[in-house]
Amino acid sequence: MATKVNRQWRLVSRPVGLIAESDFEWMQEPVPTLEEGQILVRNIYLSLDPTNRGWLTEGGNYLSPVATGEVMRGFGIGVVDRSRNANFPEGTLVQGFLGWQDYAIADGTNLSELSKDPFVPLTADLGLFGFIGMTAYFGLLDIGQPKVGETLVVSAAAGAVGSLVGQIGKIKGCRVIGIAGSEEKCRWLRDELGFDAAINYKTESVLESLQQHCPDGIDVYFENVGGEILDAVLSLINLRARIVLCGLISQYNATEPVPGPYNLSNIMNQRAKLEGFLVLDYFDRAQEALAELGQWYAQGKIQYRVDAIDGLENAPRVFNKLFDGTNQGKLAIKVSEE
Amino acid sequence: MATKVNRQWRLVSRPVGLIAESDFEWMQEPVPTLEEGQILVRNIYLSLDPTNRGWLTEGGNYLSPVATGEVMRGFGIGVVDRSRNANFPEGTLVQGFLGWQDYAIADGTNLSELSKDPFVPLTADLGLFGFIGMTAYFGLLDIGQPKVGETLVVSAAAGAVGSLVGQIGKIKGCRVIGIAGSEEKCRWLRDELGFDAAINYKTESVLESLQQHCPDGIDVYFENVGGEILDAVLSLINLRARIVLCGLISQYNATEPVPGPYNLSNIMNQRAKLEGFLVLDYFDRAQEALAELGQWYAQGKIQYRVDAIDGLENAPRVFNKLFDGTNQGKLAIKVSEE
Repeated sequence: MATKVNRQWRLVSRPVGLIAESDFEWMQEPVPTLEEGQILVRNIYLSLDPTNRGWLTEGGNYLSPVATGEVMRGFGIGVVDRSRNANFPEGTLVQGFLGWQDYAIADGTNLSELSKDPFVPLTADLGLFGFIGMTAYFGLLDIGQPKVGETLVVSAAAGAVGSLVGQIGKIKGCRVIGIAGSEEKCRWLRDELGFDAAINYKTESVLESLQQHCPDGIDVYFENVGGEILDAVLSLINLRARIVLCGLISQYNATEPVPGPYNLSNIMNQRAKLEGFLVLDYFDRAQEALAELGQWYAQGKIQYRVDAIDGLENAPRVFNKLFDGTNQGKLAIKVSEE
Repeated sequence: MATKVNRQWRLVSRPVGLIAESDFEWMQEPVPTLEEGQILVRNIYLSLDPTNRGWLTEGGNYLSPVATGEVMRGFGIGVVDRSRNANFPEGTLVQGFLGWQDYAIADGTNLSELSKDPFVPLTADLGLFGFIGMTAYFGLLDIGQPKVGETLVVSAAAGAVGSLVGQIGKIKGCRVIGIAGSEEKCRWLRDELGFDAAINYKTESVLESLQQHCPDGIDVYFENVGGEILDAVLSLINLRARIVLCGLISQYNATEPVPGPYNLSNIMNQRAKLEGFLVLDYFDRAQEALAELGQWYAQGKIQYRVDAIDGLENAPRVFNKLFDGTNQGKLAIKVSEE
């Protein structure tokens, strides 16, 4: 059996600000021999998500930080290439924390089998039918509790999660306003995804545009960004508004402490609720989301977009697309062929 | 019938920072003749509360702002002195927005009769058995949802609401830590009210003291203050912590925008909930709170303290005790004899 080479991105220093290639080391090592119970996974798609940035900080976020010297943590989809574990025969599609590398060795405890629908491309399992879809689904419906006729605002609206949140909001009968970072993205939200309005935060005053597009105030805010956008939204929230705190992209690369919203008092005055949300709390309810998302997809009510860029070697550079406003839909690295 | 004189504090200019006597005009006018349906209330106690400061801002808070030229809005307890309304005969005790004046004229729609328990002093109705008690009761129990064995932190803990919140937390089986502004207050919380610990924010590092007194983290935070104290608490919150946003005293007198918590991301990472609370949403459930508070009081499980200072003329000066750390318990002005 030929010795395979495993190319890897290993963390060598904690990034300051945006990650740099120099924070990682590009290493190549032979794939070790499997022990009993282990499997070798050939990685196909590596998911790049804003929350990964938090795993690189000194204190981590909801997960412990990646230690220097370790392969960068990353969620991905792969296929079992060799197996010494009867639960994962060769050829099985799996998903889990495969890392920024060509091959992952696992004992199966942190992986799950991916049941592939032959009529849906594998990339969909990274987005709509993966944890991204579940994030949008449970975050909006469970925490946001949108009601027919209410106004929903979503930030990072052209991102993987945001674009689904807005579409689910439309299905649920809300007026949906998205905030995104380019005219092209705003057109996509309005013309393709059916958002009622889209605001380009790079060229418009978010507050003034929200005032214009939300004449009845804001009932639900799905927060991916933080900072000034959160403040603009808070100044327009209605009584008993729900704010789903799903992400704070604007501050993940901050090098100094970032202040919270200046309009905090409006949460009190409007008896609103700001609630933190992480999809990992909902993994046991995955089927609930996937069944309904699948139905909406089959009915043509929901679209998704995956931007899969070739080449593991590009991972650090491509990762920063999540923060510079150039990403649209689900960002991923295609590590190897399906 | 002799013409009575009504002394009043009328707003003449919007305060910048702490209120000043010069923001108000001390006027004396004759009490007008009553029309059919009206009552004349002689004010006995005037309640001074941090939230009053928000009524003086350009935009108001949850209530519209007091207009310049108007008598300063204030909650109080009084007695019907003259009546042309059969629902409120002379001698009836009433409560409502009586204002910073000796006499209020009302048609009864914004007042309610106060049913006086002969074994409880009238001042208790300003605190424990009024909207202060209801604020502590519903804010903590309905929004905070404390459970036996959990750790509860309360800021402005020696204030009217905070001192009750901590005692209710003890009744509910929580470990209770109070944050207050003097050694005397801290001793009162620990020695008289049974708090497990009290932190003097003027002489201690709140973060370090919280770390010491909350070895198992913080499950419920009853927020009256905001600012650095909120940040210190957020850095120690547990999974699914509940933060009751009841007040933000630290910023009511701010002359520039005040940033929100720098630790906002911890709300996300810990899937915590920050919820605004106003007692006026609970007025229809008043009896629920008053019955249980009354029982606890009768059983000696709960104490309250009222600091009633003589003389309507002192109202503007005394009001600032709410913000300089010298207030303990419920602050009030005694306008006239019971």
